[in-house]
Amino acid sequence: MKVDPRCTYCLLSRVHYEAKLSTDDEELINKAVIAGIDVLKDLYRPGLPAGVVSTAIHRKVYDVLNDNDPYYELKQISNKVASEVLPMARSLIYEGDPDDKELFRRAVLASVIGNYFDFGIMGFDVGEDVFDKTFAEVFDRGLDVDDTAEMYDMLDDVVYVVDNCGEIILDTLVFEIIKKAGGRITLVVRGAPILTDVTMEDVEVLELDRRVDRVLTTGSNAIGVAFEEAPAELLEAFDSASLIISKGMANYETLTEKDLGPIAYLLRTKCESVAEDMGLEPGYSVAKLIR
Amino acid sequence: MKVDPRCTYCLLSRVHYEAKLSTDDEELINKAVIAGIDVLKDLYRPGLPAGVVSTAIHRKVYDVLNDNDPYYELKQISNKVASEVLPMARSLIYEGDPDDKELFRRAVLASVIGNYFDFGIMGFDVGEDVFDKTFAEVFDRGLDVDDTAEMYDMLDDVVYVVDNCGEIILDTLVFEIIKKAGGRITLVVRGAPILTDVTMEDVEVLELDRRVDRVLTTGSNAIGVAFEEAPAELLEAFDSASLIISKGMANYETLTEKDLGPIAYLLRTKCESVAEDMGLEPGYSVAKLIR
Repeated sequence: MKVDPRCTYCLLSRVHYEAKLSTDDEELINKAVIAGIDVLKDLYRPGLPAGVVSTAIHRKVYDVLNDNDPYYELKQISNKVASEVLPMARSLIYEGDPDDKELFRRAVLASVIGNYFDFGIMGFDVGEDVFDKTFAEVFDRGLDVDDTAEMYDMLDDVVYVVDNCGEIILDTLVFEIIKKAGGRITLVVRGAPILTDVTMEDVEVLELDRRVDRVLTTGSNAIGVAFEEAPAELLEAFDSASLIISKGMANYETLTEKDLGPIAYLLRTKCESVAEDMGLEPGYSVAKLIR
Repeated sequence: MKVDPRCTYCLLSRVHYEAKLSTDDEELINKAVIAGIDVLKDLYRPGLPAGVVSTAIHRKVYDVLNDNDPYYELKQISNKVASEVLPMARSLIYEGDPDDKELFRRAVLASVIGNYFDFGIMGFDVGEDVFDKTFAEVFDRGLDVDDTAEMYDMLDDVVYVVDNCGEIILDTLVFEIIKKAGGRITLVVRGAPILTDVTMEDVEVLELDRRVDRVLTTGSNAIGVAFEEAPAELLEAFDSASLIISKGMANYETLTEKDLGPIAYLLRTKCESVAEDMGLEPGYSVAKLIR
């Protein structure tokens, strides 16, 4: 996906947000915002991949803040809140003894709702208070784009590219169904902290390696997946997968830059730019398969 | 008022908004956004008056768009909608035969609600649909900061610096009470089109000159009032006024840069930065007198 004019002010707003997470020093916050403007001035051009601009801006700002993980506290909160929601999510998924395809559909839906866990996206800031109240409501509405039936027949060798903390807890519900269907899971997390995204530290703390067959990383702290920074093992896994499952907007923005497939994008359309790029409306719960 | 880090992305968002009002040409929209980034890169520094940055950015963008009035249509819509609301506003003000001070308070409240008429402020976009429905509701809540009783004794020689189209229609309710109290009104409008602000063209179309004693302009299309571009007559009027009434955030942002007084700021706190600068919360209806 290419960068959109709307990304410019959304990125600057996020820079300000993460600077405030990192420090109370107004001068440093201003330095971070100015660094963000500098990157936009140097890099923002129509036609450039969105991930190139967003990775550059966050790296520069983390550097100015001298903070390699401004979202650390938020990530812990997200994981905690999601763990509390998990039993309710599980009971909604298994309610009424559904068949395996329906189980998968519901688990995917729960994991897409998990993509709500996000902080700092302009006009979309759902934190701990709102989450448990809205989960059942959004679950009840269901998926707005639902290719899960097709996906279900492609679970032999899944490469599952995860997104945010919190969300990852609900992703485990999908892992369960994939394993139940006899599938193999390669989990892909970020190579280093960026935004609220899952890293190897979370894999260890949450013992995610026990839930999947293999864990790889993106090789860096790039937003989404930067192919030129990705380990060969990951590129091979993408090539040989029966299905790539990509969670969230950042992975969508970057994985759409390569001709990968088959790939399923599981996300909430939390901004207009991504929604438009997918031909959808903002606020949708999406499980879209691209062959 | 000084520029705030939050102004950077709000301004860029407004640039994008007005570019889309002006053209469907995506390339030109992008040029406008890039021009906005350029101005931020050149000018954004903590401690700079907010008006300096916002005036520079909008002038540059109007220039790139080759459009000196992207908000023209919206201004006509605002005036039309406000004219339709006017009878209801008048009946709420005069209901139950209130005394003169209470009349003034209610008229000021109506004109502050008129400050809702605004398009393109990030996270605050109240257009035609919402307005008539919410008017009575906000009127019922009243002023959150109410210095109207003090203001009422200072109406001899009022300089009234207006803000947006639409809003101006409700300002005429305040003009009526000032005239009824025997006061003189110098109306101040922008010297040329900027955002949805009132200009001499609106004065003529709406025959505002009949409702006041004198009409002056700010001398330019600056956001709010740029003193270095203001005619001597306006500066004299500020000096000799018994009370300056300043409508809206842009006038607040710029008039607070000079030691003027007594001055009453009538506005809705539509953004965090202005609300904080006033020591208030966002979403307040304010009539604040500074002596």
